[in-house]
Amino acid sequence: MQKGETVAGLGESEVLRRILARLGEARAARVGPGDDCAVLGFTGEAVVTTDTMIEGPDFRLAWHSGYELGWKLAATNLSDIASMGARPVALTVALACPAETPIALLERIAEGLDAACRELAPGCGVVGGDLGRAPVLTAAVTALGDLEGRPAVLRSGARPDDVLAYAGELGLAGSGLSLLFAESADGDLAHSRGLAGIRERNPAALAAQLTPRPPIGLGTAAAGAGATAMMDVSDGLALDASRLARASRCRVLLDSSLLLAGFSRQAGEPVLLEAMLFGGEDHGLLAAFPPGATLPVGFERIGMMAGCEPEDPEPTSSARVLLDGAPLGPRGWDPFAGRAA
Amino acid sequence: MQKGETVAGLGESEVLRRILARLGEARAARVGPGDDCAVLGFTGEAVVTTDTMIEGPDFRLAWHSGYELGWKLAATNLSDIASMGARPVALTVALACPAETPIALLERIAEGLDAACRELAPGCGVVGGDLGRAPVLTAAVTALGDLEGRPAVLRSGARPDDVLAYAGELGLAGSGLSLLFAESADGDLAHSRGLAGIRERNPAALAAQLTPRPPIGLGTAAAGAGATAMMDVSDGLALDASRLARASRCRVLLDSSLLLAGFSRQAGEPVLLEAMLFGGEDHGLLAAFPPGATLPVGFERIGMMAGCEPEDPEPTSSARVLLDGAPLGPRGWDPFAGRAA
Repeated sequence: MQKGETVAGLGESEVLRRILARLGEARAARVGPGDDCAVLGFTGEAVVTTDTMIEGPDFRLAWHSGYELGWKLAATNLSDIASMGARPVALTVALACPAETPIALLERIAEGLDAACRELAPGCGVVGGDLGRAPVLTAAVTALGDLEGRPAVLRSGARPDDVLAYAGELGLAGSGLSLLFAESADGDLAHSRGLAGIRERNPAALAAQLTPRPPIGLGTAAAGAGATAMMDVSDGLALDASRLARASRCRVLLDSSLLLAGFSRQAGEPVLLEAMLFGGEDHGLLAAFPPGATLPVGFERIGMMAGCEPEDPEPTSSARVLLDGAPLGPRGWDPFAGRAA
Repeated sequence: MQKGETVAGLGESEVLRRILARLGEARAARVGPGDDCAVLGFTGEAVVTTDTMIEGPDFRLAWHSGYELGWKLAATNLSDIASMGARPVALTVALACPAETPIALLERIAEGLDAACRELAPGCGVVGGDLGRAPVLTAAVTALGDLEGRPAVLRSGARPDDVLAYAGELGLAGSGLSLLFAESADGDLAHSRGLAGIRERNPAALAAQLTPRPPIGLGTAAAGAGATAMMDVSDGLALDASRLARASRCRVLLDSSLLLAGFSRQAGEPVLLEAMLFGGEDHGLLAAFPPGATLPVGFERIGMMAGCEPEDPEPTSSARVLLDGAPLGPRGWDPFAGRAA
């Protein structure tokens, strides 16, 4: 790669060629990138989700390398597919960037996307996309999954007395984000000493924030084990559990001793209960299973489902989730307000 | 609607509620918006395409109302689905905007998206999406189509002697854009006298640019009539024809008398040959049919396919498309260069 090559200097065709050269094939693709559409074969019903990451509100190039950004783009969408009990089969990626963007950045993003597909969801790959110009780097990913004949696992199927379980990292990504904010109070730590310091002291928290590894394969495993409800936890366990509870017309009873037993040390690093409940960007799987079900290896029990009180059949969100019996406010992320919702 | 309500003031849940209230259901959706993914049933192979529109490079709020923007977002993606010979079944929409964006703008976008689906592709609808914050209004749409058991019509299947035909408006949208640029040399004509003047004098050209009506239903009709190759013309007939020619290892012979006979007056407005060849944003269907095939009503013959010369089996793009026997440079739009590619 020559230093200083920009997307405007190379033009659309060459930019596309460079990106496509870095992407592996998707197994389900009958036709991949290059035509008006990609063509995909599904063996069962299909699931689809879309998510956008925009420089500034969603990521900073001072924190995320191109590779990490591509990885995270894929990983966060793959976890939504897994949470339906589906197998991820394909991604489309719409990238837009300023004309002076170095082609090397887009090449690294493509490599990160491809690596995350290969490692987290073998057989899945990028089948199409779009290139455009924008004032800041903008990436919209749509992911597609195959239910392979199984019914989708929705948020709404949990029943009172179901076991509530979680798979994946919990609170680590939020801790990583807090460390990044704390170390870069000056605004731009760019791969500076501050970032190197976090990498040395808290490698797991930083990795969870920059290159999350959601347990994608456990989505189909949970469906096979009879999960009654499942969702991807991306806005913090407390808020997302309240969503699952509301969709299922239940309450969630979280047990702090189970949370602490399962998640107070992850990859050798301590994680506080506060971070587990409100951290955000975990992208693990929250699932309900019938009482007595054998949980797939990788899921940890964290509580149970309960019915609503007869005197309060439609509780507010904050009364949907109880920690050790006490209501837990559904704090979480609102993209517009930039504050807890 | 109260004037002055912004997305930041309302928060994510209320913004979502307002948008979803304006969207009809998609017939193929087993599960619509609200879970981690939508769930779709396909009867044959699926096709998928994605496209982004960003305020500034791709549209101006001074020219496009929210409704028109939503309409165009849907229409341009639906035409990619049609060009594969597929029936559009679902859209996902990722919208990002500044925190101070009026909710009314997003509501109008949702109404435009919904109207375009209802009118151009009945049964298709928005099944999911994402909301985020961005420095300018950013919309990424992914469209999904069902081949219903038919094979996809690719760009690569045309053979020498096939009839080349086109369905839809041709050059009108480009004329509309030229008029908008000419009338707004001062930079911002906002729904001012200039825009009103164009609406009065050239309503068809303006409508083709702002609310294109691609012949979506003719995609499956062309497939049924035996189309050997098909594509959506979005970057200008000359450039897109060179792409179809290259993919099919053929040349395209355009006939100016056929183009003028079929397209020199559209909806009562004159269109120049130059605009037909290089206008862009037509979103009509360019298709090749076997010699002797009966073209579906709505397709006009504009030329034919030819083999490559034995002495030049891999011609350059500019030699792939001939107009009345003479090579036609493949001028068209490059999003990064902001110039003809």
